[in-house]
Amino acid sequence: MDIEALATGILAGERRALARAITLVESGRADHRQSAMALIERLNAADHGRQAMRIGLSGTPGVGKSTFIESFGMMLTGQGLKVAVLAVDPSSARSGGSILGDKTRMEHLSREKNAFIRPSPSQSHLGGVARRTREAIGLCEAAGFDVVLVETVGVGQSETVVAEMTDLFLLLLAPAGGDELQGVKRGIMEMADIILINKADGELKSQAVRTCADYAGALRLLRKRPQDPEGFPKALTVSAVEETGLAKAWEEMQSLTEWRREAGHFEARRAGQARYWFEAEVREGLLARLKREPVKGALERMALEVEAGEVTPAAAADTLLRDYLGG
Amino acid sequence: MDIEALATGILAGERRALARAITLVESGRADHRQSAMALIERLNAADHGRQAMRIGLSGTPGVGKSTFIESFGMMLTGQGLKVAVLAVDPSSARSGGSILGDKTRMEHLSREKNAFIRPSPSQSHLGGVARRTREAIGLCEAAGFDVVLVETVGVGQSETVVAEMTDLFLLLLAPAGGDELQGVKRGIMEMADIILINKADGELKSQAVRTCADYAGALRLLRKRPQDPEGFPKALTVSAVEETGLAKAWEEMQSLTEWRREAGHFEARRAGQARYWFEAEVREGLLARLKREPVKGALERMALEVEAGEVTPAAAADTLLRDYLGG
Repeated sequence: MDIEALATGILAGERRALARAITLVESGRADHRQSAMALIERLNAADHGRQAMRIGLSGTPGVGKSTFIESFGMMLTGQGLKVAVLAVDPSSARSGGSILGDKTRMEHLSREKNAFIRPSPSQSHLGGVARRTREAIGLCEAAGFDVVLVETVGVGQSETVVAEMTDLFLLLLAPAGGDELQGVKRGIMEMADIILINKADGELKSQAVRTCADYAGALRLLRKRPQDPEGFPKALTVSAVEETGLAKAWEEMQSLTEWRREAGHFEARRAGQARYWFEAEVREGLLARLKREPVKGALERMALEVEAGEVTPAAAADTLLRDYLGG
Repeated sequence: MDIEALATGILAGERRALARAITLVESGRADHRQSAMALIERLNAADHGRQAMRIGLSGTPGVGKSTFIESFGMMLTGQGLKVAVLAVDPSSARSGGSILGDKTRMEHLSREKNAFIRPSPSQSHLGGVARRTREAIGLCEAAGFDVVLVETVGVGQSETVVAEMTDLFLLLLAPAGGDELQGVKRGIMEMADIILINKADGELKSQAVRTCADYAGALRLLRKRPQDPEGFPKALTVSAVEETGLAKAWEEMQSLTEWRREAGHFEARRAGQARYWFEAEVREGLLARLKREPVKGALERMALEVEAGEVTPAAAADTLLRDYLGG
């Protein structure tokens, strides 16, 4: 693997180099992992100073996520911006990959030369998906992309994972029937910087406006976060199919980001995220030892003794930690 | 610490020895931990063959948990059974310990010579509480208790923790207003072996009967579990204040346990739980190294470099694992 050539290609903004590099960070092979780390270090050392706006986007199936990304992405590329789309979908391995079809569902964007769409890898382990996505964001950034959209369907903890690797978190919702707030979990609400009510068109338009007002009200009840200027988090209506509200939404994202940069929150958040992932990698690295020989076999043998009641869980754990895990 | 005397006292069913032993397993001191493990090994080696019925009990504040334990416990001691009550309340450190008041709220039971009530220790870490409770159960069992009730207020993951250390899981609920099922989480429902609708007395009686029927219906919709005989999980009404339904509930617990013993599920569940806690102890033991020097300091130093962008999270994690965690 010619790391140097790959790094040069990425820094020159070559899509094929970027695609190959992402394949590399997705690989489970140990030698690939070594190469991927060397590549990332090489890009880090290049000190390219490029910073994309990293945008997380969550929304359940049916809210029009693909259509939104298609319209929003086309608007951005129309302004001369380079847009990358990545997906975090821990369920894709199971479901056969709903997001694997995204490229075809984003018909125009996928043919756009300033856009780069990468489906979720077929890996069900969220930890693995998280590292791959985090590293892929860095690669897109090094390749000069201005906006990196990270999409998730919101299975289990995936929203938290995406929020921990993006600068801005969007929640895309459909107009709600009646005045119910669609059972959006409070934790997810608290993560959102901007809530977008999609489908504000045709028959659903007035319903979308009402839903938007409901969410605006709900957001005002949340505790104020230090990283928010006056008026944020915010709820807006958009129509991905009629392409309305998108420019306004983008304006809000930019003004929020600008404010956060000036107040120091932008850099602080990235620094905090880097620490978060460092600690997560250390924990995962430690726990991974339990899956490797000779620990794995010893653990299994001792588990049988524990099951049989010959030794207590605590004593067996002590022995394993001392005899097989160095302390 | 005279471990031998303590073990002898416990095996003779002495309450003071039991109380001292539980204090020992609750201690965070390293030398106490050593003594606690020696004691547990000593009791394990005694091969006393005593097996309590370990019952988990969950219910939100206000459903009458203390009153239920008082009435149910008094009924059992009235039958000549020895009853221990333990609490898992990870929130007690924060709240100042609502369960610390249990002894006074269980006025009669706490004066009963065949009952032993132990409040939750003021430790906020669920992992620590889990180990302490698990080991305390073992101590009560060694001391000859017939029933060990483990109570939880159901904060966060505490129900799962309790279900992983008991033979039987009870969910105590209040009569619901209307036909709503009180928003009991599906995961909790699926854990329950018997749902008890309390307060089936006075004005609430007919409401309790309706709520019970609703839950019975909901339980029938759940997927059948291999560890259940026909008719389980089951919903029943009780009145802790009028002491009705308690004998029937106890009968059901006994018949369920008997069936599970004969079908081999009882021992299989205990074996599976032992394995679960062994693996949990190994993971916790590994991760605890990150909180100890010299790893702790190195991690903090490297985290600052990561925050500053001088090194990537993955590379820093690799270095820490290699240089400070032996591989």
